Amino acid sequence: MTSHCKLYLGFFLMLTLTASFLVSAQEQRFATFEFCSLASGERVENCVIGYRTFGTLNKDKSNAVLVPTWYGGNSENHAYLADTRFIDPEKFFVIIVDAIGNGVSVSPSNSKVQTEEKFPRFQIADIVASQHRLVTEVLGLSELYAVAGLSMGGMQTLQWAVQYPNMTSRYAAIIGTPRLASFDIALWSTRNTLLRWYLECQCEEPKKALAGIGMLGSVPEKLSQDVSRLEVHSAIEKEASEMQLSAGKAWDQVRQAQAMMTHNIARNLNDDMAVAAQQIRGKLLIVVGADDRVVTPEPVIALATLTDATLVTLDKDCGHGDPWCDESGFSKALTDFLSK
Amino acid sequence: MTSHCKLYLGFFLMLTLTASFLVSAQEQRFATFEFCSLASGERVENCVIGYRTFGTLNKDKSNAVLVPTWYGGNSENHAYLADTRFIDPEKFFVIIVDAIGNGVSVSPSNSKVQTEEKFPRFQIADIVASQHRLVTEVLGLSELYAVAGLSMGGMQTLQWAVQYPNMTSRYAAIIGTPRLASFDIALWSTRNTLLRWYLECQCEEPKKALAGIGMLGSVPEKLSQDVSRLEVHSAIEKEASEMQLSAGKAWDQVRQAQAMMTHNIARNLNDDMAVAAQQIRGKLLIVVGADDRVVTPEPVIALATLTDATLVTLDKDCGHGDPWCDESGFSKALTDFLSK
Repeated sequence: MTSHCKLYLGFFLMLTLTASFLVSAQEQRFATFEFCSLASGERVENCVIGYRTFGTLNKDKSNAVLVPTWYGGNSENHAYLADTRFIDPEKFFVIIVDAIGNGVSVSPSNSKVQTEEKFPRFQIADIVASQHRLVTEVLGLSELYAVAGLSMGGMQTLQWAVQYPNMTSRYAAIIGTPRLASFDIALWSTRNTLLRWYLECQCEEPKKALAGIGMLGSVPEKLSQDVSRLEVHSAIEKEASEMQLSAGKAWDQVRQAQAMMTHNIARNLNDDMAVAAQQIRGKLLIVVGADDRVVTPEPVIALATLTDATLVTLDKDCGHGDPWCDESGFSKALTDFLSK
Repeated sequence: MTSHCKLYLGFFLMLTLTASFLVSAQEQRFATFEFCSLASGERVENCVIGYRTFGTLNKDKSNAVLVPTWYGGNSENHAYLADTRFIDPEKFFVIIVDAIGNGVSVSPSNSKVQTEEKFPRFQIADIVASQHRLVTEVLGLSELYAVAGLSMGGMQTLQWAVQYPNMTSRYAAIIGTPRLASFDIALWSTRNTLLRWYLECQCEEPKKALAGIGMLGSVPEKLSQDVSRLEVHSAIEKEASEMQLSAGKAWDQVRQAQAMMTHNIARNLNDDMAVAAQQIRGKLLIVVGADDRVVTPEPVIALATLTDATLVTLDKDCGHGDPWCDESGFSKALTDFLSK
């Protein structure tokens, strides 16, 4: 995992986590579909989906765990999850799938036919549909032991529960949500405004604003410990100067944020979360950060109440970063759940 | 007071509060000094300080209460405080003073000789010095019954306690702070980056980002109640379109934010808040919003611990807006304090 000092940057953690862990990542693989149909009616051409697998599929093909990726994340920086602490590759066949728009799977930054702004808007449901095709058409699986994801990965996990309810009976949504709260939409909308500013000027200032907004995802007391008041300006400037942004990457982030803002597992159910909850079969693990201001927990806690979910609240003053700050709490919740 | 629906905008409340209360504001007055010397060594030329008074000064000139203004606020929209609910003008001679840079007192937007970016940076200490001159040189007072202010007004109140410790023995700092926490600096720094974007383009987009950041000052659960997830984008656009911004006003906000970011009552005391606390004589009322993410309460709660302050925590899920959401709690704390 990345060094601890990055944690104060809240959801920027998601972008900067690098593969400095001991478990070496399995090789990057790709499945290619001629196109992926989108819920909007549009389609993504030359629909390449990246993934990595860890461990071995058992004989009756019943031990596969699917891990969708967080905003800006990719299968490489999720590889640390294929570990005894989280999803043991000795027991499970772990499939980490790159989300559309992450720069590895088909994305505004790498599509040759739908470049940057020409890349159509997509939904979390579309990302999940691409994963379903990978799992069923390419990997030949008709069931999954579990789906487990963090943040935007947790959103995809909950979408799986309503979109393909017969594929698995275990859903672990970590710091995810069935749909974004107003606060979260304000956050991602503002980030997208800043990304469009970057796209216009390709200059440093919007990166500073993005870095600043990243800090506002922290728990204030924790931020004070990590960055003294006299260091805030230089920390923002450092973060901005190290931010790997380009027009393509900015569009990747804009499109993934749009997917999150429109995410709603009750979309086709009259926007009624109680009905969506009734449709969820199988076991549900919901892990939240007590003071998460990136994916605020209210909607997912409401879903936990509507279902028979196991709700675990991490509270190490790291907000959205709690699964990293309280790695043992996260580890225990997930391994307990997967062993049931 | 402004309509309740504005409250979700967090500190934008400060900018948009309008004079729709019943108590009519006393007339705007001005004191003019040839210049105001700044702690930096620079000076503000033609240093006009606006103020309004309410009630009557008693014979022994012992009932004056000074009210400094919040960020972007002016004496007109603070007039509601001159009321039996807060500072009773039947008992007190209430002096509400426009802070330098608020567009009424000398400011980047109205200075004829130091226009916009030419207006020098100033500190909270400089604002307080201008008030001291108003009170002593113009109003002829050698003491104040109390100083009481909200938000940036609370910062000025605490600065009074170390800068002019002999003028009064009562300080009421409401949602203020002795110096900004790292989180707050990240917020105001980011706002200033957006204001500079506005200054460059004079366009709509930075106003949307400012409106969005305003929402991020709210308590998420409260924001969900006030603005549904489907209304967030339109609420941001509406707020942006109604935002009265101009180059002059943007510079006013930039300079006041810089004053807040450099605010530190222990500045001349080796940055040692314990020493600053020892210097505070008289009674101290500290009122905080439980989940305030605009002026985060940690530093002022620490100061309360270091002094013999009365600490009141408002907790109506409005964060920085708690003195408005919990008007009766704020009223009780302040009137009790002033009656002692």
